[in-house]
Amino acid sequence: MIIGVLMTQGLLVTLEGIDGCGKSTQVELLRNRMSQEGIDHIMVREPGGTAVGESIRQILLNNKYSPSLQSEIFLYMAARSELTAQVIRPALKSGQLVLCDRFTDSTLAYQGFGGGADLEMIRNLSSIATGGVVPDLTILLDLPVEDAVGRRRTTADRMESKDIKFHRRVRSGYLEIAHNEPVRIKIVNALSTVEELESIIWKMVEETIIAKKNKRTDYEF
Amino acid sequence: MIIGVLMTQGLLVTLEGIDGCGKSTQVELLRNRMSQEGIDHIMVREPGGTAVGESIRQILLNNKYSPSLQSEIFLYMAARSELTAQVIRPALKSGQLVLCDRFTDSTLAYQGFGGGADLEMIRNLSSIATGGVVPDLTILLDLPVEDAVGRRRTTADRMESKDIKFHRRVRSGYLEIAHNEPVRIKIVNALSTVEELESIIWKMVEETIIAKKNKRTDYEF
Repeated sequence: MIIGVLMTQGLLVTLEGIDGCGKSTQVELLRNRMSQEGIDHIMVREPGGTAVGESIRQILLNNKYSPSLQSEIFLYMAARSELTAQVIRPALKSGQLVLCDRFTDSTLAYQGFGGGADLEMIRNLSSIATGGVVPDLTILLDLPVEDAVGRRRTTADRMESKDIKFHRRVRSGYLEIAHNEPVRIKIVNALSTVEELESIIWKMVEETIIAKKNKRTDYEF
Repeated sequence: MIIGVLMTQGLLVTLEGIDGCGKSTQVELLRNRMSQEGIDHIMVREPGGTAVGESIRQILLNNKYSPSLQSEIFLYMAARSELTAQVIRPALKSGQLVLCDRFTDSTLAYQGFGGGADLEMIRNLSSIATGGVVPDLTILLDLPVEDAVGRRRTTADRMESKDIKFHRRVRSGYLEIAHNEPVRIKIVNALSTVEELESIIWKMVEETIIAKKNKRTDYEF
């Protein structure tokens, strides 16, 4: 309970990884842990989390549409912009911990490394979409694509049904992004057991809360 | 018929103006005229014109949503990117005349001048969305906001139902855009009769077709 009581500053934690990495399970476990610890938090997902965002999600993940890569990127940015302005920013401002299932790194990994879109262009658009909000901690659940495939739901959405080479580029893209930002992004071996992962991830979140508390750098709005 | 037979190069003609300026009527008349003249053409509208674009249109113009300004801009860009890649560019490449009901200038006028978004940011995003495709001719149907209000449909969409000050900023924004690009953008007094407008607009299109023919500058892809 100590951490929860101490925490008065907003904190943005994002979870990233290829489809089938076990992200959804860990997001749920992390939510439960935060509730137990008395940490005021919200959980959101990308794309989605707002009325507009959920409508965009339908377009992006529905197999009946096949937007061009550039249109896809703009749609993700529209959803992100909406989510950041309407939900994430106000929550951070009020001191909540925001747990976000996918964020800016997903667009870099999927549309950039996976799809071949220009990385600098994606970074520029993301910066406009978020208005400069950057995660305090990003947890990358990493595992080989072959292991991830077996874990997926039976019915694949449009992103999941792309070929294995695409997902390999996404995975190595994620690793490159993490390599370039070792302070913000922590790589976790997603082949560990669910319990091990839960424990590792919670420790990372805990350390980030304490570090932020000590730095006393509030979000500026 | 002569113009139609001669025409082998793509040509992009866009119509712009505030809601209620009589644009839809003129678009229809222009289509009919092009058919009579034997000009191979297509008509598209923004946002829309593709499966993804029409879904985006539902989000943008539906009164039940109220996306943030930045999200709105990204959604217009997503629709534009899709329309340009899937429809406009291939049509221009095959030598068709593309008649587009609203295009890049609408975002500058509505979200930029009307909504207050940064004009340079909009221009940059538009350039990414269109991949550099610029109209050969843009016809701006101009009239005072007060006159436009009386002409509108009874049921206003989300854009139309914004207040009169917003639409005044949009109108003056359009005039400023046109002032800065006098070669591409032709201002037409929308208070003229339907028949007068039809005749003026057709003359402008005809001149642009001939000028382009003489310049012999094909679209480069």
